[in-house]
Amino acid sequence: MRAASPAVVALGGGHGLSASLSALRLMTDRITAVVTVADDGGSSGRLRDELGVLPPGDLRMALSALCDDSDWGRTWRDLLQHRFSSSGDLDQHAVGNLLIVALWELLGDTVEGLDWVGKLLGARGRVLPMAAVPLLIEADVVDATGATRLVLGQSAVAVTTGTISQVRLEPSDPPACPEAVEAIEAADWIVLGPGSWYTSVLPHLLVPGLREALHRTSARTIVTLNLASGESGETAGMRADQYLDVLHAHAPELRVDAVVADPTAVEDVAALAARSADLGARLLLRQVSRGDGTPRHDPLRLAGAYSDVLDGFLGDVGTREKPPE
Amino acid sequence: MRAASPAVVALGGGHGLSASLSALRLMTDRITAVVTVADDGGSSGRLRDELGVLPPGDLRMALSALCDDSDWGRTWRDLLQHRFSSSGDLDQHAVGNLLIVALWELLGDTVEGLDWVGKLLGARGRVLPMAAVPLLIEADVVDATGATRLVLGQSAVAVTTGTISQVRLEPSDPPACPEAVEAIEAADWIVLGPGSWYTSVLPHLLVPGLREALHRTSARTIVTLNLASGESGETAGMRADQYLDVLHAHAPELRVDAVVADPTAVEDVAALAARSADLGARLLLRQVSRGDGTPRHDPLRLAGAYSDVLDGFLGDVGTREKPPE
Repeated sequence: MRAASPAVVALGGGHGLSASLSALRLMTDRITAVVTVADDGGSSGRLRDELGVLPPGDLRMALSALCDDSDWGRTWRDLLQHRFSSSGDLDQHAVGNLLIVALWELLGDTVEGLDWVGKLLGARGRVLPMAAVPLLIEADVVDATGATRLVLGQSAVAVTTGTISQVRLEPSDPPACPEAVEAIEAADWIVLGPGSWYTSVLPHLLVPGLREALHRTSARTIVTLNLASGESGETAGMRADQYLDVLHAHAPELRVDAVVADPTAVEDVAALAARSADLGARLLLRQVSRGDGTPRHDPLRLAGAYSDVLDGFLGDVGTREKPPE
Repeated sequence: MRAASPAVVALGGGHGLSASLSALRLMTDRITAVVTVADDGGSSGRLRDELGVLPPGDLRMALSALCDDSDWGRTWRDLLQHRFSSSGDLDQHAVGNLLIVALWELLGDTVEGLDWVGKLLGARGRVLPMAAVPLLIEADVVDATGATRLVLGQSAVAVTTGTISQVRLEPSDPPACPEAVEAIEAADWIVLGPGSWYTSVLPHLLVPGLREALHRTSARTIVTLNLASGESGETAGMRADQYLDVLHAHAPELRVDAVVADPTAVEDVAALAARSADLGARLLLRQVSRGDGTPRHDPLRLAGAYSDVLDGFLGDVGTREKPPE
């Protein structure tokens, strides 16, 4: 770890965000995770419906990824990740989801509740929701005949067949979490991805308050690409360079400083290099996968790649010219 | 607190046990609560049915009563005591019940799970179940016509009309929690009551392993009587001295060294004094209620009464002759 640890904000959700947090925690303890709150399936979806709260699942996973590496931290993490299994009411509820939601009810404050879970876990860093209200993701999906249909809800969008042309949020102008905006403004680095591109990564850029903070900040931005696009689901068949196209299409003003990709997940290196250059970003091709054939990031390798990116910009951080207001 | 704090084991359940623990925690941190596991109603009853676990509710309340008196301890206590309120699956589940049950599933060990909750709360002392398996309480109840009927389940017995003549456990020979047996054997003092007499206090004496440990131990035993018998329910209309009758009828060999009662809850002082003397116990009449008209113990006053009892036996503790094997 560097003498002065960089302040990093990681944007995402689900397993993708856990992967980046598992890497970042090896490099710094000044981590803020800003997490999607659009889940409408599973335990989170049921809690959202029953209690009218933010879906807690992605927040729980991010907190778990940051837990202290001690018997204490690991035990409470394992408890938070534990799911009941029964033929009754509790089946498949994750304990951490129930705990987070209960803290929200008790304390009446979303961020304070998450900070208490962070304290319980001895978490390295802080976990915040990307918006202060539950969100609905909707997508325009083009099918094989060229017809466009509307798909509603993160869980439906994530498994859609057809090609997503556009995702939107409902409400379209949700209030950003103020602490998340502050963290982005004060960050040295922003990490976007890996993760479900349309349902975990892009939504952040659709929250006006976050998007504006990303434009305002002097932090450098790293985009981490996925290891596989999947044979089905929202990004089926998408090439690595197309991830950047989609990102640019949804957030044309987003500046990207570095793109991290695993060579085995890049179909056309020249195209990805060109697309990165178009965005003004350096491309770092590096093995960041576990190398066991599964599309999972290796925390140590990903941390190594991030370190190389940071070192490449050493002296530059925080000095980039701010855009005109 | 004394230089050498006494080791106290408090037996009971529900609000009664919480009252004695709230008093004892002012006197010593060597507290072991041994708690009924026969609840079959409410959140505990549903968890017992759905997941096949010990009913956690009385254990949760005892742990909460022992929480550390700090922002940390009180916040987690409040969370454990928090109940969901909805029109859905989680309605009226206490968060602590879910947490305890999840720890049991995760760790596969009842006592270890409770110890983790104790660590979370910074609890002064330890909370143990009275038996290693869920219990059913059944009662013979005599109605106004003199007919006897069988009432099944703690929640039904607690609100029964008629006079309870006998309570039993099903299974009748449940395995005691070994750590509870050890704690009783090593104790300086045993505190029995206050609490629902038939459903929270007597059941301990019906578990063979606990009853034998109570016979074996050289600890002194204090019986704390209730502040009100209630206008309905299991002890409706019962006089203070009759509490001792019922205790003796269910556990004829139990030695009692002191009886603590609030004068306002004693209908016939002479009868109670006589009954106490019959059992070989000293009677301490002392205001231990809050004095606000509610039948609730004041922790400080109850602690004062316990201290007086302990001081009365100073030098005697642990020296009582053990009964013949």
